[in-house]
Amino acid sequence: MRLTTFTDYSLRVLMYLADAPVGRATIAEVAGFYAISEAHLVKVVHLLGREGILRNTRGRGGGIELARAPRAISIGRTVRLTEGLDLPAECFARERNTCKLAGRCRLERALGKALGKFYEVLDGYTLQDLRRATARAAAQPSEE
Amino acid sequence: MRLTTFTDYSLRVLMYLADAPVGRATIAEVAGFYAISEAHLVKVVHLLGREGILRNTRGRGGGIELARAPRAISIGRTVRLTEGLDLPAECFARERNTCKLAGRCRLERALGKALGKFYEVLDGYTLQDLRRATARAAAQPSEE
Repeated sequence: MRLTTFTDYSLRVLMYLADAPVGRATIAEVAGFYAISEAHLVKVVHLLGREGILRNTRGRGGGIELARAPRAISIGRTVRLTEGLDLPAECFARERNTCKLAGRCRLERALGKALGKFYEVLDGYTLQDLRRATARAAAQPSEE
Repeated sequence: MRLTTFTDYSLRVLMYLADAPVGRATIAEVAGFYAISEAHLVKVVHLLGREGILRNTRGRGGGIELARAPRAISIGRTVRLTEGLDLPAECFARERNTCKLAGRCRLERALGKALGKFYEVLDGYTLQDLRRATARAAAQPSEE
């Protein structure tokens, strides 16, 4: 089981913003901090903005910031959103499912139940619970 | 969250064999049934054989068959095996983890707990619980 890079980057942006000195940052700054693709982050920020998790202010003095308090941002809900179209297996593809067992297989139900339990655990976490990692990372620069 | 193709194919082979008429099949037959890559299936069969889940008999009259009764094949254990090296996110990469938050982040623990619950559900299923899908698929050919 693997989370998409999209989810991975989404959680990284949120954790960065939760501890950003003035509660705000630029996409370039976040991309630089993690050494990840800025183009990819733009898409992440777009989705999180549309879903009311981030606020993106353009122009001078603009930047991205959390649209809600960290304790009001559910990790379960965020991951459900960012995983969105990524299906756990072909069984879940309503359209274009090429598996010969589609509709007759009992695996889909088992996987669906397992996935439900996975998200149930993440529903127990808010961004507040994941905080302070970036602050510590900034204070103790890595060995590079 | 997505299972690897390796896991997907592993479960398909097992479900096929559980209901194969003489309890045995060739890799070509399974690949043909699902219209999936035979080369990929060879690797799947190799791992499942090494782990004592399948038996692979070479030569005339040979083929692949289950090494144990379907009710003795745990879906949780099988998926843990086949997902093997695929990590849920970079946090889990002990070596070559490029994330700036590695070792300071609280996400890994949350994801680890969620993944544990995911597998706990699959541990409740054996191959016996997933049976009869292929038999029904063979009896009711798809609309193609």
